[in-house]
Amino acid sequence: MNNPVLVEVTRGPLVESRHRGAVAVSDADGHSVLAVGDISAPVFPRSAVKALQAIPLVERGVADRYALGEEELALACASHSGEPAHVAGVERMLAKAGLDSSALRCGVHWPISQSAAYALARSGTASALHNNCSGKHAGFLCLACAMGADTDEYFRPDHPVQREVRAVLEDLTGAVIGQEVCAVDGCSVPTWAMPLEKLAYGFAKFGAGHGLSPARAAAAARLRRACAAKPWYVAGSARFCTEIMERFGARVFVKTGAEGVYCGALPEQGLGIALKCDDGAGRAAQAIMAAVVARFLPLDAAERAALAPLTQPVLRNWNGIEVGAIGVTDAI
Amino acid sequence: MNNPVLVEVTRGPLVESRHRGAVAVSDADGHSVLAVGDISAPVFPRSAVKALQAIPLVERGVADRYALGEEELALACASHSGEPAHVAGVERMLAKAGLDSSALRCGVHWPISQSAAYALARSGTASALHNNCSGKHAGFLCLACAMGADTDEYFRPDHPVQREVRAVLEDLTGAVIGQEVCAVDGCSVPTWAMPLEKLAYGFAKFGAGHGLSPARAAAAARLRRACAAKPWYVAGSARFCTEIMERFGARVFVKTGAEGVYCGALPEQGLGIALKCDDGAGRAAQAIMAAVVARFLPLDAAERAALAPLTQPVLRNWNGIEVGAIGVTDAI
Repeated sequence: MNNPVLVEVTRGPLVESRHRGAVAVSDADGHSVLAVGDISAPVFPRSAVKALQAIPLVERGVADRYALGEEELALACASHSGEPAHVAGVERMLAKAGLDSSALRCGVHWPISQSAAYALARSGTASALHNNCSGKHAGFLCLACAMGADTDEYFRPDHPVQREVRAVLEDLTGAVIGQEVCAVDGCSVPTWAMPLEKLAYGFAKFGAGHGLSPARAAAAARLRRACAAKPWYVAGSARFCTEIMERFGARVFVKTGAEGVYCGALPEQGLGIALKCDDGAGRAAQAIMAAVVARFLPLDAAERAALAPLTQPVLRNWNGIEVGAIGVTDAI
Repeated sequence: MNNPVLVEVTRGPLVESRHRGAVAVSDADGHSVLAVGDISAPVFPRSAVKALQAIPLVERGVADRYALGEEELALACASHSGEPAHVAGVERMLAKAGLDSSALRCGVHWPISQSAAYALARSGTASALHNNCSGKHAGFLCLACAMGADTDEYFRPDHPVQREVRAVLEDLTGAVIGQEVCAVDGCSVPTWAMPLEKLAYGFAKFGAGHGLSPARAAAAARLRRACAAKPWYVAGSARFCTEIMERFGARVFVKTGAEGVYCGALPEQGLGIALKCDDGAGRAAQAIMAAVVARFLPLDAAERAALAPLTQPVLRNWNGIEVGAIGVTDAI
C-alpha cells in the first residue's frame, strides 16, 4: 500500500522534501476514529511505548518499594536528553535498588542535547547514564531486583522482566507478538512490531484506564500523572514531548520513538494515537502528532496559537534567515 | 508522480523504514542512461553542486593569483566536517586574499564531526570556520576580491559572484534558473532548483569536459583533480564522499547535498549522476549513490567487495549489536 504524503517541507517557492506515513486514532473500545494509510502493517514502536513498558514497575509495587517519585517514574518512560538532572535522576533510581551505572546494559551515547554534550565534553565523557534510555533501563533493573531476578541480562527477550513487559503490551494492544516480529532496539531490549491500529487502541486504554485490571489501570494512571507533572524528565529542554505536555498537562500524553514513530493519548477524549512516517523522519512525525492533537483535543484560541509553531514549524538557516517551513497536508 | 521505493531499512525480520526517490544518469551529450522516478521535477541541489559553484574561482585565474593548492580547491568544493585541518585550510584561503574569518557570511555551526566538536568544546567554541560550507565561502570571497567586488554581501543572488556562479550552472546543466526556483541555502547563498536530468547532464560535462569552453573544461578538470588528490578535504574522516574518492581516485567524483541529494561523475564513462530521496534522507542517498557507482563503473572483485558496506550498510546499536541493514531495492 502507498501511504499518502502527510508532510511537505518547503524551501522558498517550492516543496523540497515529502514525508509519507500512516496514522491511527482509536477509542478504548477499539473503534477506529481516524485511519490514514496502512494502519494494519506491523511497525516497531521503539521508544514510543516506554510508558507501557514501565507499567510492571508500578503495578508490581516496585515504585512504592523503592520510593520512586514522579521525576523517577517520568524517567522510566523517557527518551531523555542526557542533561545533568536527567543523569542525576537515573543515578538516584539505581541507588534506590542498591545499584549503580555499571548495571546499565543500554550502551553509551553522548547526550541528545547538544549543549549538554558540549558541556559534558569540557569536564568528562559520556557514560551509559547519558543514553536516552537509561531511565527505562533503571526501571527494568528496579523491577528485576524486586522480582529477585538476575540483573545482568534483563534486556533479553526471555528474561522475566521482558516477559512481563511483553505480556503488558499484548494485554493493552490486543496484538499477539512473537519471535517473527521481534527485533533488537537501539538499547538492546526487544522491540515487538505491531499494527498502528493496535498501538492506538493500547494507548487509548492506557489513557482512559478502560478495559484494564484495576491494578494495571492504577499503574497507567500513576505513570501518566508523573509524566504530566514532570514532562521535562520525559524528554528535556526544547523537546517536543516536553513542550506538548508542559502546555497541556494531563490532557495529552505523547511519546516519541525512533524511526518516525509517535504514540499518544488524549485521556479526556478516551482516544489513543499511533503514527509512523515511512522514512523514519522525526521532524515529520512531530508535525503529524501536533496536527492530530490539534484536530481531536478541544482547544481555545491561545492553545491553538501555541500549537501552530509545532504543526507548521518555520525553518531557519545558520544565519537565522527563514528559508522554509514544515507543513502537514490535508490528508490529516 | 509517485517515485519508487529505492531503499529499505530492515530491523530484525522486518522492513522498518522505506525511502523513495529519483535517479538520473546522463551522458555528456544529454542522453539519458538511467531514469528512475520523476527526473524532470525541480530539485534544490544544495551543496551537491559546490564543485560547479567553484568553477569561476579557477576559470577566472583566481586560484593561480592566490596560489590555491589542491587542499584549498578541494575545500572550495567541500561540505567539510570541521576537523582541525579543514579549519586551518579555510583560514589559509582567506589569508591569501587578505581576509580572515570575520569575512565569512555562512553562519556558525559546530563541526559535523562529533569527535571534532567535542574536542573543540574542550578548548573553545564554534565559529564560522567550522561551518561545513566555510571553504565554499572562502572561495567566493577570493573570487570577490579578485573581481574587485564588494566582500560584504557576496552571498546575495544579484552579487557579481553569485551571478557568475548562476551563469556557470546554466551553462553546464542547460537549465534556465530564475527567481521562481531560487531559495536560500543553509549558508545563505542562493540555491536554484533544476531537474535531476539536467543536473546529471551538467555533471557528465563536468566530468568529461565535453561541451564546455576550453577554459571552463580546464577549470573543471583542475577541480576534479584536486578532489581526487585530496578527498579528505571534500568531506572528512569516515565520510562517504571521502571514502568513495579515496577508493576510486579520479575515476569517481561524488558530492553530497542536504535533503537527500547526491551528484557525481564517472569521467572515464562520460557519465553524470544526480539523485534525490523524496524525504531528504542522507543515509538513503548514500546507499543509492553507491549502488549507481557499482552499476556503471567497471569494478574488479576487490573493488566490488569494498563498495558492499556502502551499498548495504549494516546497522548496529549502542552496544555494537547488529540490528538491521540498509539495502537498495531492485528499482536501481
